[in-house]
Amino acid sequence: MQKLKNDELNRPALTDYKKQDKLPYVIILDNVRSALNVGSVFRTADAFNTSKIILCGITSTPPHKEISKTALGATESVDWEYFEKTEDAVQHLRSQGYSIFAVEQATQSCMLNEFDAAGKPFAIIFGHEMDGVQQSVIDICDGVIEIPQSGTKHSINISVCAGVVCWEIYRQLK
Amino acid sequence: MQKLKNDELNRPALTDYKKQDKLPYVIILDNVRSALNVGSVFRTADAFNTSKIILCGITSTPPHKEISKTALGATESVDWEYFEKTEDAVQHLRSQGYSIFAVEQATQSCMLNEFDAAGKPFAIIFGHEMDGVQQSVIDICDGVIEIPQSGTKHSINISVCAGVVCWEIYRQLK
Repeated sequence: MQKLKNDELNRPALTDYKKQDKLPYVIILDNVRSALNVGSVFRTADAFNTSKIILCGITSTPPHKEISKTALGATESVDWEYFEKTEDAVQHLRSQGYSIFAVEQATQSCMLNEFDAAGKPFAIIFGHEMDGVQQSVIDICDGVIEIPQSGTKHSINISVCAGVVCWEIYRQLK
Repeated sequence: MQKLKNDELNRPALTDYKKQDKLPYVIILDNVRSALNVGSVFRTADAFNTSKIILCGITSTPPHKEISKTALGATESVDWEYFEKTEDAVQHLRSQGYSIFAVEQATQSCMLNEFDAAGKPFAIIFGHEMDGVQQSVIDICDGVIEIPQSGTKHSINISVCAGVVCWEIYRQLK
């Protein structure tokens, strides 16, 4: 077992990546505080073939030094858009036929291992590091996806959380 | 769909968590540079019921201010040990009946979606942010697990990577 060098990984060039079909889901960041977390989500979205990231409210937008630190160039490959109000992003996507799911801990949530990613296009919303997704946004969602967990802490880090959910979608659809 | 408050999540108290059965896998960190990444792995290990973390080489150990920033207390719930040489940690676990897998991009790797976590206890090794798992460590592993990905970047962040692999194990075994 020999480690592969970067040029042996056959990653697509930026222009080829842009042309490549994406998986039919969008990430919405609802007031994510840390630009480092935003950059990490860009890198994850690049890896797992996400269609687009929608940055809302206080979420930082590229170009931004701290986003670049963790995105490592993925702000060039992944399409993004900004909405001041997360509710407007939700309504915009819904009008285009998307189903909308918040990633949260809530009553009537669907556990991630029971979530079926196949079917019509959808958006997944990740929220603020301390406060999570706003209740007013959850109120207009089609459902809530929850990551089951067994630990003492109430949640996992938002960039790790996005990695877990995007992997689960990628694993199911790819 | 109403967001749950922390006290509605029914997370186990620290003493109960310590007594709770863990999943039969151990995380090895092979010379991870960033203490923030180490802390994040602790938090992920707490959530996904990992038996233990083994910190090797230059990997920081608790108590450490930057580990605490991202572990948020998970250094208390998750058992850990330190080995100066990662190879010694591998041999120690092997002598106890563990299979050992590096998470890397390598020839003859097994894709994560094809990895079967059931069976005998195992360890998963995550490496340095730039250099990955050392080839000398891979040389004494039973296999390499690779996260399939479609993006332009050669890899994802190590704390996200640990989240993805630990979720996949948790999903399969829980």
